[in-house]
Amino acid sequence: MPHIDLPPGHSPGISGLLMYRPETAGPLRELVEVLLRGPSTLTMAEREIIAASVSWWNECHFCHTSHAAAACAHLGRDATFIDAIKAGLPDEPLSPKMRALLQVAHQVQRGGKHVGADDIAQARAAGATDLELHDTVLIAAAFCMFNRYVDGLDTWAWPEKEKFMEIGGKMAHEGYMEPYRPSF
Amino acid sequence: MPHIDLPPGHSPGISGLLMYRPETAGPLRELVEVLLRGPSTLTMAEREIIAASVSWWNECHFCHTSHAAAACAHLGRDATFIDAIKAGLPDEPLSPKMRALLQVAHQVQRGGKHVGADDIAQARAAGATDLELHDTVLIAAAFCMFNRYVDGLDTWAWPEKEKFMEIGGKMAHEGYMEPYRPSF
Repeated sequence: MPHIDLPPGHSPGISGLLMYRPETAGPLRELVEVLLRGPSTLTMAEREIIAASVSWWNECHFCHTSHAAAACAHLGRDATFIDAIKAGLPDEPLSPKMRALLQVAHQVQRGGKHVGADDIAQARAAGATDLELHDTVLIAAAFCMFNRYVDGLDTWAWPEKEKFMEIGGKMAHEGYMEPYRPSF
Repeated sequence: MPHIDLPPGHSPGISGLLMYRPETAGPLRELVEVLLRGPSTLTMAEREIIAASVSWWNECHFCHTSHAAAACAHLGRDATFIDAIKAGLPDEPLSPKMRALLQVAHQVQRGGKHVGADDIAQARAAGATDLELHDTVLIAAAFCMFNRYVDGLDTWAWPEKEKFMEIGGKMAHEGYMEPYRPSF
């Protein structure tokens, strides 16, 4: 049960919190929209994978599974891809640049000071630009916020990953600006 | 030296990053403006103390010292109050509600799942409302983002706390919507 009183039938995870507090929902929605869906040389699927991976490392089931499901929707994959993200995508043809950016994101998740010059050098050697490094750090940092917001208020989520395919599709195809209410 | 190429003479901490990437600066500025300065039953000084404390626990010198200096400006205190925030304000007449909300914020800093029903119950017993609990969790979570953004890109900051009194005054009295350039 959430730590604060949300209305009966409220939406899962962050969705219920965004409806509870519209004053903070506005900038939070805009931030994730520009970071994950704005113009970028990283694909939307790559950015969703970074978001889902950070959320997994932070053990936030709702954020991990919903953003992994958004990556599935972008890539036309089924829900087994969610488990592949948990495992670090060992069998996927991820570019060396994406692997290096995921390492930078993992260091950010551990703490800002964990990002070393060697992590940055490795990403640059694999072709990462300044803007890609900036956005990777900010995506990882932002999910350290979203994960704590969602779990710090003890919001609910479905246990089964398959139930997240609807919200993932909506996130991928319609974006983050409108409230989400499950259709089931 | 920052991990990405910022222009010569760029502003310290997050200020330089906000100028580098205006697309993400907009929602980040709006978020902190509404959280720390919007309508609330928590005073602006109380909210700055929560932000400064979380930043101290995350070892983010720039965010800690600037937000502690903003609390100084709100309360008419000198820079020694920055060290009192580091120490947890043991000798200050902080309300039991503020002490309980700082405990909630500290649990959020450790990770969302660290916030226990006992932490919430103690804050409620001390008079905290649902909205105050929500905002405390989101302020703490947001500074887990800002701290990682600032340190993950290795931005610069003055070592001396006294140099932060100018930016703290500007944050307290003018808010977060405009770029900051040091006058010295």
